[in-house]
Amino acid sequence: MFSGLSAFPLTPMNAAGPDDVTFVRLIENLAEANVDSIGALGSTGSYAYLNRAERARIARLAVQHAGPVPVMVGIGATSTREVLHLAEDAQQAGAKALLLAPVSYQPLNSEEVYELYRNVSHELSVPLCVYDNPRTTRFEFSDELHARIARLPGVASIKIPGVPADPQAAKERVERLRKQIPSHVSIGISGDPLAATGLNAGCELWYSVLGGLFPRTALALTRAALAGDSEQAEQLSRELTPLWEMFHQHGSARVVAAAAELLGHVEAPCLPAPLQALNNTERTTLAALLDKLALSR
Amino acid sequence: MFSGLSAFPLTPMNAAGPDDVTFVRLIENLAEANVDSIGALGSTGSYAYLNRAERARIARLAVQHAGPVPVMVGIGATSTREVLHLAEDAQQAGAKALLLAPVSYQPLNSEEVYELYRNVSHELSVPLCVYDNPRTTRFEFSDELHARIARLPGVASIKIPGVPADPQAAKERVERLRKQIPSHVSIGISGDPLAATGLNAGCELWYSVLGGLFPRTALALTRAALAGDSEQAEQLSRELTPLWEMFHQHGSARVVAAAAELLGHVEAPCLPAPLQALNNTERTTLAALLDKLALSR
Repeated sequence: MFSGLSAFPLTPMNAAGPDDVTFVRLIENLAEANVDSIGALGSTGSYAYLNRAERARIARLAVQHAGPVPVMVGIGATSTREVLHLAEDAQQAGAKALLLAPVSYQPLNSEEVYELYRNVSHELSVPLCVYDNPRTTRFEFSDELHARIARLPGVASIKIPGVPADPQAAKERVERLRKQIPSHVSIGISGDPLAATGLNAGCELWYSVLGGLFPRTALALTRAALAGDSEQAEQLSRELTPLWEMFHQHGSARVVAAAAELLGHVEAPCLPAPLQALNNTERTTLAALLDKLALSR
Repeated sequence: MFSGLSAFPLTPMNAAGPDDVTFVRLIENLAEANVDSIGALGSTGSYAYLNRAERARIARLAVQHAGPVPVMVGIGATSTREVLHLAEDAQQAGAKALLLAPVSYQPLNSEEVYELYRNVSHELSVPLCVYDNPRTTRFEFSDELHARIARLPGVASIKIPGVPADPQAAKERVERLRKQIPSHVSIGISGDPLAATGLNAGCELWYSVLGGLFPRTALALTRAALAGDSEQAEQLSRELTPLWEMFHQHGSARVVAAAAELLGHVEAPCLPAPLQALNNTERTTLAALLDKLALSR
């Protein structure tokens, strides 16, 4: 399951908590689009804002409505104890893989992060994806630490937070990491604005925010890149430049949440407070952009 | 209650969760030392690593064993929903004040943080302390935002993350903030290494990590400063320089946790995994230092 397009849907919220019905519709759309995997309860899926019972329920709904598409579930939390509980819940829900970021309150050091992955990896019966996202965890993985963690049992993929924009530098970056980790561990690109660059540079999959809402647009880009048509992949990405700029400015989750609200796929507000999607001026810009781009669900 | 020494105890952990018996002993020591207030479930008290039921229980234990000393309880969480639940629990436990940091996963913007405080402040029946701690929340308050939030109903104090080391610059910093907030809102210094400098610069209280374990040492420094003996306060702080250096290097919670373990006040390991107190080499250094400093509980 660690190749192609891994689509990360929102977990839409309402006043009472996660909006199950709307979440199921997002999952069904991903299953119909035939994405290669679904990443439920990723950052875009607001995992860090839900309690354990809600996360277990959302994990079950994702698996139940994904059809044959394998579901990976985010199990990040500040404490190792809670991560282990969440791993158990997600596996019981039928998750085919788990996604773990070193979520922090007190800034973590490398030894703490290694011990977190070591303790968790020994308790799992499904593969683990290492989620490297310094923007939300404020932890910077060194390649040396990636190499140590990638050798732990069950580690199957690393979700990297981006690559250099220059294609040659991106290739060197991916090759440098590739050399240090076992060959069975895939490298996936996240940070949608550089997804084409990452795939063209040798990443095996795209962990995609855009793909959670617009799977067919994200699939076209992914398939062009993985078929070796790097020009076509770059061209498809370039067409989305104004959207990527909004991702940079506001964070991808806020932009995709506002897009889902504008297009009527979720009720507004769909993000968990205190997070806010875009303000009115920004929404007007985004609405015009969505009209023009005609992204494909 | 927002003056003098506010002491922040550890919440010692064991394999099952918070170690109630040991926590109660720490609280009783603070009550006997007659600190001006107790900050239960602060960063040092690992609030971000406990679930709602554990936090409610620890809040109750703190209030029950603090005697006449007023207890403030930390209610920070990533979601506003959870913060409101925690506020309710803490007030039912008998907290005399609440402490709220803008805890984040997705980085927050100023409008989101303002709305968080606005929504929460309207639901409270006890005073609120604004907890400004960019090291753990990764959110930087502007003075303008402090001014807006300080005008919300019930806001009674701001816990600032430090002051410049230079006494004159520290004074200017505190005066600049003071001018922008209502006079009934106190300013408290945190970041123990600059506590004396902050108190001498006009902060009304010290939100103290050291004071959670060694209240009498922290009280001596606080009382000297608040009595106007700035030289004596600076001198007492200077004597602790090697300890402050360890705070800077490892984070104050890791150092105080290791000190509590070394002195037998808590069982080891007392921090919630994945957090680790100091390694063996660092512990040897700390043990020698504790011998030399003979801090007063």
